[in-house]
Amino acid sequence: MRAATWHGPRDVRVEEKEEPTLASDRDAIVRVTTASICGTDLHVYRGELTVVPGTVLGHEFMGVVERVGSGVRRFREGDRVIVSAWVADGECWFCRRQLFTQCESVNIFGMGPAYGESLDGAFAELVRVPNADVTLIRAPEGVPDERLVFIGDGLATGFDAVANAGLSPGVVVAVVGSGPIGLMSGMCALLFGASEVLMVDVSEERLKFAESLGFRTVNASRADPVEEVRLMTDGRGADVVIEAVGRTVEPLMTAIQMVRRKGTVSVVGFHLHEYGVQMGQLWLTEKKLVFSIGDPIRNGERLIRLVSEGRLDPSRLVTHRLPLEEVPRGFELFERKEALKVLVEVSRGA
Amino acid sequence: MRAATWHGPRDVRVEEKEEPTLASDRDAIVRVTTASICGTDLHVYRGELTVVPGTVLGHEFMGVVERVGSGVRRFREGDRVIVSAWVADGECWFCRRQLFTQCESVNIFGMGPAYGESLDGAFAELVRVPNADVTLIRAPEGVPDERLVFIGDGLATGFDAVANAGLSPGVVVAVVGSGPIGLMSGMCALLFGASEVLMVDVSEERLKFAESLGFRTVNASRADPVEEVRLMTDGRGADVVIEAVGRTVEPLMTAIQMVRRKGTVSVVGFHLHEYGVQMGQLWLTEKKLVFSIGDPIRNGERLIRLVSEGRLDPSRLVTHRLPLEEVPRGFELFERKEALKVLVEVSRGA
Amino acid sequence: MRAATWHGPRDVRVEEKEEPTLASDRDAIVRVTTASICGTDLHVYRGELTVVPGTVLGHEFMGVVERVGSGVRRFREGDRVIVSAWVADGECWFCRRQLFTQCESVNIFGMGPAYGESLDGAFAELVRVPNADVTLIRAPEGVPDERLVFIGDGLATGFDAVANAGLSPGVVVAVVGSGPIGLMSGMCALLFGASEVLMVDVSEERLKFAESLGFRTVNASRADPVEEVRLMTDGRGADVVIEAVGRTVEPLMTAIQMVRRKGTVSVVGFHLHEYGVQMGQLWLTEKKLVFSIGDPIRNGERLIRLVSEGRLDPSRLVTHRLPLEEVPRGFELFERKEALKVLVEVSRGA
Amino acid sequence: MRAATWHGPRDVRVEEKEEPTLASDRDAIVRVTTASICGTDLHVYRGELTVVPGTVLGHEFMGVVERVGSGVRRFREGDRVIVSAWVADGECWFCRRQLFTQCESVNIFGMGPAYGESLDGAFAELVRVPNADVTLIRAPEGVPDERLVFIGDGLATGFDAVANAGLSPGVVVAVVGSGPIGLMSGMCALLFGASEVLMVDVSEERLKFAESLGFRTVNASRADPVEEVRLMTDGRGADVVIEAVGRTVEPLMTAIQMVRRKGTVSVVGFHLHEYGVQMGQLWLTEKKLVFSIGDPIRNGERLIRLVSEGRLDPSRLVTHRLPLEEVPRGFELFERKEALKVLVEVSRGA
Repeated sequence: MRAATWHGPRDVRVEEKEEPTLASDRDAIVRVTTASICGTDLHVYRGELTVVPGTVLGHEFMGVVERVGSGVRRFREGDRVIVSAWVADGECWFCRRQLFTQCESVNIFGMGPAYGESLDGAFAELVRVPNADVTLIRAPEGVPDERLVFIGDGLATGFDAVANAGLSPGVVVAVVGSGPIGLMSGMCALLFGASEVLMVDVSEERLKFAESLGFRTVNASRADPVEEVRLMTDGRGADVVIEAVGRTVEPLMTAIQMVRRKGTVSVVGFHLHEYGVQMGQLWLTEKKLVFSIGDPIRNGERLIRLVSEGRLDPSRLVTHRLPLEEVPRGFELFERKEALKVLVEVSRGA
Repeated sequence: MRAATWHGPRDVRVEEKEEPTLASDRDAIVRVTTASICGTDLHVYRGELTVVPGTVLGHEFMGVVERVGSGVRRFREGDRVIVSAWVADGECWFCRRQLFTQCESVNIFGMGPAYGESLDGAFAELVRVPNADVTLIRAPEGVPDERLVFIGDGLATGFDAVANAGLSPGVVVAVVGSGPIGLMSGMCALLFGASEVLMVDVSEERLKFAESLGFRTVNASRADPVEEVRLMTDGRGADVVIEAVGRTVEPLMTAIQMVRRKGTVSVVGFHLHEYGVQMGQLWLTEKKLVFSIGDPIRNGERLIRLVSEGRLDPSRLVTHRLPLEEVPRGFELFERKEALKVLVEVSRGA
Repeated sequence: MRAATWHGPRDVRVEEKEEPTLASDRDAIVRVTTASICGTDLHVYRGELTVVPGTVLGHEFMGVVERVGSGVRRFREGDRVIVSAWVADGECWFCRRQLFTQCESVNIFGMGPAYGESLDGAFAELVRVPNADVTLIRAPEGVPDERLVFIGDGLATGFDAVANAGLSPGVVVAVVGSGPIGLMSGMCALLFGASEVLMVDVSEERLKFAESLGFRTVNASRADPVEEVRLMTDGRGADVVIEAVGRTVEPLMTAIQMVRRKGTVSVVGFHLHEYGVQMGQLWLTEKKLVFSIGDPIRNGERLIRLVSEGRLDPSRLVTHRLPLEEVPRGFELFERKEALKVLVEVSRGA
Repeated sequence: MRAATWHGPRDVRVEEKEEPTLASDRDAIVRVTTASICGTDLHVYRGELTVVPGTVLGHEFMGVVERVGSGVRRFREGDRVIVSAWVADGECWFCRRQLFTQCESVNIFGMGPAYGESLDGAFAELVRVPNADVTLIRAPEGVPDERLVFIGDGLATGFDAVANAGLSPGVVVAVVGSGPIGLMSGMCALLFGASEVLMVDVSEERLKFAESLGFRTVNASRADPVEEVRLMTDGRGADVVIEAVGRTVEPLMTAIQMVRRKGTVSVVGFHLHEYGVQMGQLWLTEKKLVFSIGDPIRNGERLIRLVSEGRLDPSRLVTHRLPLEEVPRGFELFERKEALKVLVEVSRGA
């Protein structure tokens, strides 16, 4: 089969690869119809996260069940499915409490060997999916892939960013970073009843796009965004701030300063390092910090209902559609921020 | 001043009435700009609830502060305000826990002497408002009365109907009764993130209107609505059902049958009587029953923010605008269900 | 094997019965060590609920796994287990949301054919347990059966009675009915931080026992219990009232009157019939009604931890210990209210 | 009147001071019966927090109302009261949402001029209390001061430490630091239904005391406490960790490492500085950080009920009782950790 594999920093090749086979009776093989490049893939692309050369990249995808192991009960050949980026066993202490992203045997596609076993990822014709009864989410007919595919990762992350912040209707939300995860978090904040969602970024182009989606915007390269948000909130700051940039301390510090006293900072940006944080200030102002990585297993069915009914439409973020053979170009576009969400159209399904 | 007063069943007269004066240093006098006829007024109009003849009717209104007692701290002459239909003291056991509708000295305008002292109501040029620091809600400039006035009663009730049901995003909500409170509950259900809101009624005209607001509808005169909702939910029933008809047992029974096992029936319909309810069925299916009468004091500021930002627009329910002199005609239209929300335009404000 | 079976109203016989076998690869056979007679069994005993003659009675039990089907993953021979009274499939819409008591294939032991297939129950040497990975709860070593066995039904019910009422620390709880479920609910109310738990009953003997467990008591045969509770709460009523009698409307009405405005009535009493309820009063006072049947699958591990650490000790309710052969006498004692909890000691375990 | 005032680091003098007078019609003058030295006072004592020389120290106290301003409605001369350490106005945006510790005009006794105006504190015969209707909490007769006085600060902090962590029954809680706030947090964790509370400290003496109160203990000077807690929790870590040491990064880091994935660290330690925190680790493990300073206004009545009913007894922490004249010695004992809670017995009350 054809697959896009990693061979070194910025060296992604589409090549022939052996078809996956069932390694356990709980596995399924999924024929990928649509996948998408996620921001986390970029860390792998650049070599910031180590993967085994030859690994198939990608973890945001959906398709059709091709084959199931004898122990799979809920799915069979021909079922249309979204695949959770995170693989969970469904049986451990965490899974029994529906904390699937912290499963004792958690794994993720296309990032190996981040969690032990290296799992080949989404940018391929076929993917082996462990613990299929848990990891697969049944997709409805009649809703196009482009609206469903992000449920397996990005949209679930935006949803958790908001849900974990305990957002209640009528509050003011600011989102630091208007990339794909920031925008999906903003969409979810509106869904949860935020009175206003303020998108904060330094890229005028991204902010214009955010405006076209109906968000109010704050250009942090022109004015102090903390001050701007204060002016919009009678001097208090936003009730909830979602940090969706990651990697360095600055956006996190901005978020902490931007939230009102007793408010919540919800971090979905990808962080690797140790930073100095003003703990004294956090204590005195009783601000909360919550961190989310997005749980498609827990929230998948709920998100499918919301997308199917048109309450959420993440397909509005799609700027590019490429065939599998052009995944390397997709990464280039994405790294240069010329693309927002790149759809990889692998096959036509069943 | 001019005021619409009750003299007997269906005998409402607009007549001269003495201007109210401050009875306590915590009172304010409010010059009414806009009021509205609420479904509960109809019970008074028909004589189903006893009021003292000569009482000024109405409890959904807003205006401008004309005068305040010396003990009023948060408001002064000229302030634009929404008036909570419910008067609370802000100090009792219930108020200290923000359960204002159950205040130990609770009262309501224009329904006297339901709670002891009879308070003249909204359909007048001036209204005396007790406990002004608690009962008044500051209204923003730049947002028209027609979008704000329902915050003082109907919209707060719709909001509580949904909030008390513990609605979380992605659930299916059915609303039994598509009158004003049903429609405002439906709007709030969407605000809280319902994936779908199904309006159930027997009036084709009302259902058409509900459709024009974006709701899916079920005509209960053509098919068994419980069965219809089951078909739309894979046989389960709605996650939350809001009962917004009241008065008889039938709509309540429909709501109880329409909700899925472990779901919640949220009752905002006005009930007076004792009914037989299938307790065995409720126990076995673990359904919840919650009752709400709507708390503008608790949720007023939140609702103002949502209305000001365009997240909620209850003015879409306004079908008639009448001057104070035509309140009697307003009641006639409303009783015949020819009107949905009747605005009474009393004055131009400050 | 030996088993206590039902042959007609008050006709329970201990007799030879064929040993159960695995009917599905998801089944387990459990060797019962300890079982207990539950109030619901009494309805069967008296013939108020129809069971197939020859059915083994009982659904509150624990033991040791004797044999498992090839599809059982979490348990194996020799594991010490508590058995959930409710059997769930773990896969349906309800189970995926952890609403196990409303599973689409729900069943209960020893009450057949209440839910289709008749399942033989607990008062036997061996019991077949369907969906063992879901229905069994791992029991720790070192904690005696008498403290663990009620987790499979009664203690889980008491826990849910309180949890579903949304009890927060510092509130006043009244429990109508000081039988086993009422007492276990009261224990759980203290665990959740109630400032006081008032046990209401008409039996002086039961109230004395309740006092010996540390509860305050109200004798409803001597004074109006609603009035008594009001006097203890500055005239307001209890914040939460748990109705643990069932069968008739009176205890439910008492509970509704006894709870304060905006308070919660949590019903765990077994109800079969339709009753007249003052809906108008409920609406005006915004009281909540919640119903619980107890979910050992959801809360079993949590309860095991609480029991193991001595935070809950339901074994204090055990008044009688009988061998399997004396189950008929246990029923007689229990029906005459001479016993509170009757332990049936079946075997010594592994 | 006599009062203990600050004149420089470790220079506290009991001297004559003019009696306070009403500065506003919302003030009350309270005759102090009992006060207590709180850990935060130590920062002032040592000069780490600057106060105006001559300021009366102390903020944890109760007494009897001596005189009220004309605008005070809920209290009058002779009322027994606990005084909230935090003064709030009851009217601002935060107070209207019951976030009293973040009031826009917040202040604290005896720490001035931390929040603008310097307020004389608790170690005096008389204290002026601003916004008496908000800041005072009515105390019941028949419960001794030593059980009630901590409600005004320390016990409210322990309660919020647990409440803000969202603790549900059956979880494992670890408390880093077994000083007064740690112990009161631990008591509250048991009240909320924790299955176990593990007290972590380096002082064998403090741990022995913690054991005498019924806590399990971990001596961090003898073994790695993170490892110890892991061993007690099947390798997972505690569900909730309360950090009750403050001042440096170490206890906070210990707490973050000690909590399980998706668990909550609740910080009540007093922090002033900026620290490096492993944000990448927090994100990947989705741990929550919440900060609490304790809100007696919000939770005072609830705590009074719990203390009056014997569900909480913070008087067990009292090691010393001194007259007002010996406050300087109290500070010495407290700084040397020879005392846990020092009661200052000022007068006999009304």
